Amino acid sequence: MPRFTEFETYDVRFPTSLDLDGSDAMNTDPDYSAAYVILRTDAGDGLEGHGFAFTIGRGNDVETAAIEALRDHVVGLDLDATLSDLGGFWKSLVHDSQLRWLGPEKGVMHMAIGAVVNAVWDLAAKRAGVPLWKLLSDLTPEQIVDLVDFRYLTDALTPEDALEILRQAKPGRAEREAVLRERGYPAYTTTPGWLGYDDAKLVRLCHEAVADGFTQIKLKVGANLDDDIRRMQLAREAVGPDIRIAVDANQRWDVAEAISWVEALAPYDVYWVEEPTSPDDILGHATIARAIAPIKVATGEHVQNRVIFKQLLQAGSLSVLQLDSARVAGVNENIANLLLAAKFGVPVCPHAGGVGLCELVQHLSMFDYVAVSGSMQDRVIEYVDHLHEHFLDPVVIRDGRYVAPVRPGFGAEMDAETLTDFRFPGGKIWTDLTEEKK
Amino acid sequence: MPRFTEFETYDVRFPTSLDLDGSDAMNTDPDYSAAYVILRTDAGDGLEGHGFAFTIGRGNDVETAAIEALRDHVVGLDLDATLSDLGGFWKSLVHDSQLRWLGPEKGVMHMAIGAVVNAVWDLAAKRAGVPLWKLLSDLTPEQIVDLVDFRYLTDALTPEDALEILRQAKPGRAEREAVLRERGYPAYTTTPGWLGYDDAKLVRLCHEAVADGFTQIKLKVGANLDDDIRRMQLAREAVGPDIRIAVDANQRWDVAEAISWVEALAPYDVYWVEEPTSPDDILGHATIARAIAPIKVATGEHVQNRVIFKQLLQAGSLSVLQLDSARVAGVNENIANLLLAAKFGVPVCPHAGGVGLCELVQHLSMFDYVAVSGSMQDRVIEYVDHLHEHFLDPVVIRDGRYVAPVRPGFGAEMDAETLTDFRFPGGKIWTDLTEEKK
Repeated sequence: MPRFTEFETYDVRFPTSLDLDGSDAMNTDPDYSAAYVILRTDAGDGLEGHGFAFTIGRGNDVETAAIEALRDHVVGLDLDATLSDLGGFWKSLVHDSQLRWLGPEKGVMHMAIGAVVNAVWDLAAKRAGVPLWKLLSDLTPEQIVDLVDFRYLTDALTPEDALEILRQAKPGRAEREAVLRERGYPAYTTTPGWLGYDDAKLVRLCHEAVADGFTQIKLKVGANLDDDIRRMQLAREAVGPDIRIAVDANQRWDVAEAISWVEALAPYDVYWVEEPTSPDDILGHATIARAIAPIKVATGEHVQNRVIFKQLLQAGSLSVLQLDSARVAGVNENIANLLLAAKFGVPVCPHAGGVGLCELVQHLSMFDYVAVSGSMQDRVIEYVDHLHEHFLDPVVIRDGRYVAPVRPGFGAEMDAETLTDFRFPGGKIWTDLTEEKK
Repeated sequence: MPRFTEFETYDVRFPTSLDLDGSDAMNTDPDYSAAYVILRTDAGDGLEGHGFAFTIGRGNDVETAAIEALRDHVVGLDLDATLSDLGGFWKSLVHDSQLRWLGPEKGVMHMAIGAVVNAVWDLAAKRAGVPLWKLLSDLTPEQIVDLVDFRYLTDALTPEDALEILRQAKPGRAEREAVLRERGYPAYTTTPGWLGYDDAKLVRLCHEAVADGFTQIKLKVGANLDDDIRRMQLAREAVGPDIRIAVDANQRWDVAEAISWVEALAPYDVYWVEEPTSPDDILGHATIARAIAPIKVATGEHVQNRVIFKQLLQAGSLSVLQLDSARVAGVNENIANLLLAAKFGVPVCPHAGGVGLCELVQHLSMFDYVAVSGSMQDRVIEYVDHLHEHFLDPVVIRDGRYVAPVRPGFGAEMDAETLTDFRFPGGKIWTDLTEEKK
């Protein structure tokens, strides 16, 4: 009986703060980082499970320590038994009677569970010889429901509701899979809009985005209103009237300020406003959503778990649900989030960017299209052109769309050289920077 | 100019799971633990700041690592400048542009900030030569407002609202301080009601609680309805009709189950039901509160920050606010929570127990009485008779009331011997247990 035998962690950081890539109103100087885990087995097939939590620098060591705390929950487990009951495996981590105190189901510990759960899914897909989206899309509705923990959800979504959603989507699976393989999945780009970029760079990147086939771009806002109005105007002139422009405040505002700020940008046709206030403020988001309609509210990259998503949907706090592949407890919890969105008829437009988030989250949107919502209408996956070169199977964007990946796994695997060179603080990149005193 | 010079952390754990003290429906086998920090300075007065985050065992190493991640935020700081702007110090930790990704403002990282903030307050009170409750109670309304971060609160509580609440309470401060010193602050006891105790022990401890002068007790519920009905009936018979009995489900239920379970216990006169469902479920708590009234809903020990408390109050989700001294980001955030409760006219009945939570939280309730709400009406601090012997200044309970502490500081300081013997995994207690293979 093959077992999980090794559990290896890495604190990997990229010195992105040097160029202000990824700069926004709240996260002014990120060093994109990954608390990374590799799982190995004695199955003899040489396959490994890779997963990670994404952070933006300081504290990536804490996140790595949290992943380490799960070692004994994995090493020694029977491989086949685990892979055949990934719903049970998820619960064994999330409901650990002592670890749960550190959340429950939020923050450092929950993200660590997400990294490990995603690593196990990576291995599962590799063993099945298919990309994760395909593995999930071929499960029966009953198998999918078994992956989800409905605790705290049943006032909004029961297992029976979920089964109905999945059964309704079943007949069209093959046809949609063919469409997906042929045409890919729509993307939008955040590349033009970082706060640290000057006007000329903004305009140039806006033109490039349109030329590259994107139909939606996103600007970071929230630091200075006059700057935001000017940048919004420049962007609108650059892309023309037919391209959607979303704005992203990264939690900068209180409720009243959010409403007045968005109203000031509205003349330039804002499609959605993202993270207008605290990601914890369900009622605040609802107040903002009512005030700024028909401009949409989007949020999710910092939403800690399915219980908050449930309430954001119940309260009408959002019109666009932005799940994140590495914030909640991995694939299983994101299946719950996709089912909740489908129940409420809200499109999912995932958060991505960072390190490897594009590589991961495309699988979830593609699974959603084939087997859950069955639609690409008003659905786009965020795309940012950073750091893809560090992955074995980087995303491919063609004509503003994600090309469906074909390589087996979840896309989480970084190059071995990257894991060594960018390891913090001892990797080559960091020791070189220390010598330069940057 | 004196500075902070040393920052020492300890992973301290008590093997409480051996006796099932502290067992409830979700936390079945806790080993009460503290991720502990000591701050030292070169002021030459020998005074130290002590603080900790409370956990229940596994993961206390992760929590300790999170506290360690704050070392560079403290060591080297000017002592007097820091102590004279503790509102600014709080923001420098909570809004660190990289660390905030690990929350924001929740879970492991936020609790770590709470430990450090509380340690600095411990030192501030020691340097002032007064207990913390007295230090806070002597601040002007303007000084108190400066300690609070109103970000994300202003749709419910503005700085002006807070000033008005504090100014209204100002005239009666001296009189209430005298009452507090003479009569103490009311307590209730959870000692009888742990799930791991048998019926005979439950009844015996109920009788003892009444004999000791308590007017409220609390039972853990949620594992088995028939058991809960039997235990509730036994407890009611033991204490008589005039003692309040609260029940605590520790997040066990979904919304519908919470309502039906509480209705089954209602004939035995339930005063409040605590943590009926996920601490993240603001809307779920509101639904439960409407359904079970006039039985009250109480929650707070797992409420991650002031933004959730704000919404619980806005939505009418609770009638009893149970702040915790070591879950949110320390004294400053709990002042925000006290002000929010005062604004909404909801009594604060803090969560305590664990390790040292009674020692800490009494200061916050006493400050609330003297300078914020100005009332003890329907207000009680939880009391559990565990592990007080490990503290330099353990709480004193007389006739069912907390006696106001007089020793300078925040009460957080453990005996040096405890820090050594219970250190995990190398302390004497743990190496002995390992030898016994327990």
